[in-house]
Amino acid sequence: MATLTIGDDNRPISSLLIFAAMDSEALPIVEHFKLSRDDGSLFPLGVAWIRYHGYYKDLNLNVIYPGKDRDLGNNSVGTVPASLVTYASIQALKPDLLINAGTAGGFKVKGACIFDVFLVSDLSFHDRRIPIPGPDRYGIGLRQSFSTPNLVKELNFKVCKLSTGGSLDMSPQDERCILANDATIVDMEGAALAYVSSLMEVPAIFIKAVSNFVDGEKSIPEEFAQNLQASVVALREAVVQVVEFINGKCLSEL
Amino acid sequence: MATLTIGDDNRPISSLLIFAAMDSEALPIVEHFKLSRDDGSLFPLGVAWIRYHGYYKDLNLNVIYPGKDRDLGNNSVGTVPASLVTYASIQALKPDLLINAGTAGGFKVKGACIFDVFLVSDLSFHDRRIPIPGPDRYGIGLRQSFSTPNLVKELNFKVCKLSTGGSLDMSPQDERCILANDATIVDMEGAALAYVSSLMEVPAIFIKAVSNFVDGEKSIPEEFAQNLQASVVALREAVVQVVEFINGKCLSEL
Repeated sequence: MATLTIGDDNRPISSLLIFAAMDSEALPIVEHFKLSRDDGSLFPLGVAWIRYHGYYKDLNLNVIYPGKDRDLGNNSVGTVPASLVTYASIQALKPDLLINAGTAGGFKVKGACIFDVFLVSDLSFHDRRIPIPGPDRYGIGLRQSFSTPNLVKELNFKVCKLSTGGSLDMSPQDERCILANDATIVDMEGAALAYVSSLMEVPAIFIKAVSNFVDGEKSIPEEFAQNLQASVVALREAVVQVVEFINGKCLSEL
Repeated sequence: MATLTIGDDNRPISSLLIFAAMDSEALPIVEHFKLSRDDGSLFPLGVAWIRYHGYYKDLNLNVIYPGKDRDLGNNSVGTVPASLVTYASIQALKPDLLINAGTAGGFKVKGACIFDVFLVSDLSFHDRRIPIPGPDRYGIGLRQSFSTPNLVKELNFKVCKLSTGGSLDMSPQDERCILANDATIVDMEGAALAYVSSLMEVPAIFIKAVSNFVDGEKSIPEEFAQNLQASVVALREAVVQVVEFINGKCLSEL
């Protein structure tokens, strides 16, 4: 990975960029760290992107999310808004590390449980099928997160692979590709953020709390809605532990 | 559409931003207008994004494409690279009009023919299924292009709806969603560029040349490869006509 060789790994990490797709994922983290909303001057006039920032010990913390769709009022989930706000924030803030904190769907058959929190090792797409040798690998877009063996060990994280797609539901075709990606969890942004991380040469880690099964008996949207509140609490606790662990350390110590 | 009410529609258009996904789509346009490659200083260091620029009559022309994937060497097709390079270019260049010029798959059953060139009226996604009332509409992401009735009439363009997805092939689930979107053609970037256009309040039009059927007998990748060269010639000719038509006119005259 390009990200492993970039930057100065031997000075303490000083700034974190935390991306969440939804306000319900971002705001518990914002509240815990008592961050302040900025005036929007970091971003182009008129966009709904939101940034909160502040300090925790030696760390400059930034939490960003794409905000509500201007026309429809929904959270702007998915790969495109996530990529844009993260790109713009990296350009403006030059963070030492990107953290994607979010909820995810879990595969029962792969051992995931509701409210599990995973650190992600590998990220791919399951809905970019380009059946031409060469471009097929580009479509899958396999990337690795920044390696954090000490963080995983110390905080006793489960580690798994993640597959990203634009849909909340799962078609039979999606399922085949997710299983081919060997993913235990699925989300709607991760692999796109891994792409931006690689493009911009900023190391990235991915913390994902399981809110629903993708191969369970319940409907995905219902189970997701039912478990969202408790999932974001589990997510916040994991993020708080990770931030505490990172404080005072270099990238190479993670 | 927000884009219809933005900007000064009553001064002549002075700068165009033309996005293509692939070098094979972009370079015939670049060569026709004898554009020069810039030094890359518009974009972050190290990214593969490419811009050509120059003048044609009263117009400042910019052709951009995402370039080759750093790790794999393929054209960086799809919604995320398209959105990022277009966002960065709009930020830097503040163009009066965005033109997405590209190849597309066509639906035989909807009357599309190979080498047809369409101007797009409506754009949606077919692989962002979010089966929750409200967010479902966000996922589909229906947007309209900038309305150009005089251009359509004068240049005798066929007009149709476009559906965008991350895959070159088409799953049964994709096909259902494409038909629900009432699309005659499909591509891998359009609706994402319509989103960026709306976000950045720059009007956008979409010129698409049909390179293959999505519901024909031949394999999509084979037919696409077979017809690519002739499609990009048809595409270039349409773009040249459109640029000629735009020269000297205001947005409100298109």
